[in-house]
Amino acid sequence: MKEFDQTAAQAARDRQDQLTKPPGSLGRLEELAVFMAGWQGRERPKIERAQALVFAGNHGVTRQGVNPFPVEVTAQMVENFRQGGAAINQLCRLAGAGLQVIALDLDRPTGDFTEGMAMEVDELVAAIQTGKNAVDPEADVILLGEMGIGNSTVAAALAAATFGGSAEDWVGRGTGADDEVLANKLRAVEAGLRRHKGAATAASILGSYGGREQAAICGAVIRARELGIPVILDGFICSAAAGVLLVNDRNALDHCLIGHESAETGHRRLIAVMQKKPVVTLDMRLGEGTGAAVALMILRAALECHNGMATFAEAGIG
Amino acid sequence: MKEFDQTAAQAARDRQDQLTKPPGSLGRLEELAVFMAGWQGRERPKIERAQALVFAGNHGVTRQGVNPFPVEVTAQMVENFRQGGAAINQLCRLAGAGLQVIALDLDRPTGDFTEGMAMEVDELVAAIQTGKNAVDPEADVILLGEMGIGNSTVAAALAAATFGGSAEDWVGRGTGADDEVLANKLRAVEAGLRRHKGAATAASILGSYGGREQAAICGAVIRARELGIPVILDGFICSAAAGVLLVNDRNALDHCLIGHESAETGHRRLIAVMQKKPVVTLDMRLGEGTGAAVALMILRAALECHNGMATFAEAGIG
Repeated sequence: MKEFDQTAAQAARDRQDQLTKPPGSLGRLEELAVFMAGWQGRERPKIERAQALVFAGNHGVTRQGVNPFPVEVTAQMVENFRQGGAAINQLCRLAGAGLQVIALDLDRPTGDFTEGMAMEVDELVAAIQTGKNAVDPEADVILLGEMGIGNSTVAAALAAATFGGSAEDWVGRGTGADDEVLANKLRAVEAGLRRHKGAATAASILGSYGGREQAAICGAVIRARELGIPVILDGFICSAAAGVLLVNDRNALDHCLIGHESAETGHRRLIAVMQKKPVVTLDMRLGEGTGAAVALMILRAALECHNGMATFAEAGIG
Repeated sequence: MKEFDQTAAQAARDRQDQLTKPPGSLGRLEELAVFMAGWQGRERPKIERAQALVFAGNHGVTRQGVNPFPVEVTAQMVENFRQGGAAINQLCRLAGAGLQVIALDLDRPTGDFTEGMAMEVDELVAAIQTGKNAVDPEADVILLGEMGIGNSTVAAALAAATFGGSAEDWVGRGTGADDEVLANKLRAVEAGLRRHKGAATAASILGSYGGREQAAICGAVIRARELGIPVILDGFICSAAAGVLLVNDRNALDHCLIGHESAETGHRRLIAVMQKKPVVTLDMRLGEGTGAAVALMILRAALECHNGMATFAEAGIG
């Protein structure tokens, strides 16, 4: 496992202090440049190869009426990704990320977590492995996104199981739940938390609630860490998925940024308990990796300044 | 004067509701697409020609010890802009904006506003005209930025004169004032507000406090409005400069976005009294137009989704 390179990060900080601007005046862009320097292990980090991975899965808990859209929409949106018609396609093209969409057994939803385990151990292991295998070892940065009808309910359950709190703390309207659907979501999460209250490890939490895309996200996060590749998580669902890894290791997500603060209720709370800071806040709540793709543009801005600006000495100032 | 085209904006809203995503789920990106549609007067707004204008000026009030940097740095930074070494150069290249730097009589600072008028009427008119003339009528969007040692003190005075409140409400550390410099800034703004308390029109406020770059920013904002070109203002100094126009016409800035919320004390307050919402908040406080350039990337993201996404009908979903 590669760790944050303090020497490279310090060299990047020193460089920032010599660039033609008041020290600290690029704010978050300076922090992001130092973050990238530390994880890439070089004073001047670069993004020549950005990989966006979007994992898609289906969820048995949709039987509880937790989403206004039918479960078929997951596969239809995967097809839309492949045709280039979704938001994530436009944003990856603009931000310069290569997009890969990985559908995980869409015709075989995970088990309904209100009634039993979402995944058996072999299914869980396979999904994690799919995520690990998807990571391009040559990538400079990995963006993670997801698609799965019903998965904001799964995310709420994962967050509650990982960080405590009630269903009310974590359940929101997702992609557009009305009051009835919202009540179904709350009931489903409460039922799940009662049923699986013994789940206390990352694996048992993931197995209890699912889904495959969440397990794949964890796999990709783990693999990126082994390779020392920085990661941009998308919004609420990605954060909740990766957050499960903190149960086993509170430093497991040190290489991860949270791309944006979603408008989904609970994401702000989740970011706070994960001790993270989102890159941007644009009231987005779409998923797919769209917030991560926007954040990639900010990351590029940070590196463009870091690598391209003149120092005071070079510019003959001061 | 061109006004916001409600028909084009409504057509853009209707299009957003047909795109392959839950309605509203792109949040601020949807709002920005509709804003651009209204100001460009077409359902599908575009950015093929983005013009970034950076106005630079010097200020007599620097005699009051309001900045840690010597006044010569303004010209040195203008040279740095021309050599391509500053943050704004990197960000304009990345965001796809053409950069023009316009230095206004740097060897002839405006008058010290603690002791008299910053500008005579003819100087004020000339600076406004410079700003107007700089606007490219073919531009799809205009980014405004500034450079001027001491101009956060001028901005604080302009904000207080325009929107009321005390020097403490508006004075901050700018590019890095220590306690002594901060005290000097407060004293200078207080002295200016006492001396010019009768200033009640945009012209008299600008003439009282200056500077030339602030007047040029106002000129560019006015000209862009005549042409119906949307504008992205940078941070505290640009906002305070353009804000003066609200004294004469409370709708004068309807075509302007505020690119980012600066870390400079007072910008949050200023944005609130201007009834605006920043595009991003990244704790930047550099000026030059850097926050506007980052915001341009977000604007491009908004239009890329708006114009490039498939509708539900096109994708055969639902």
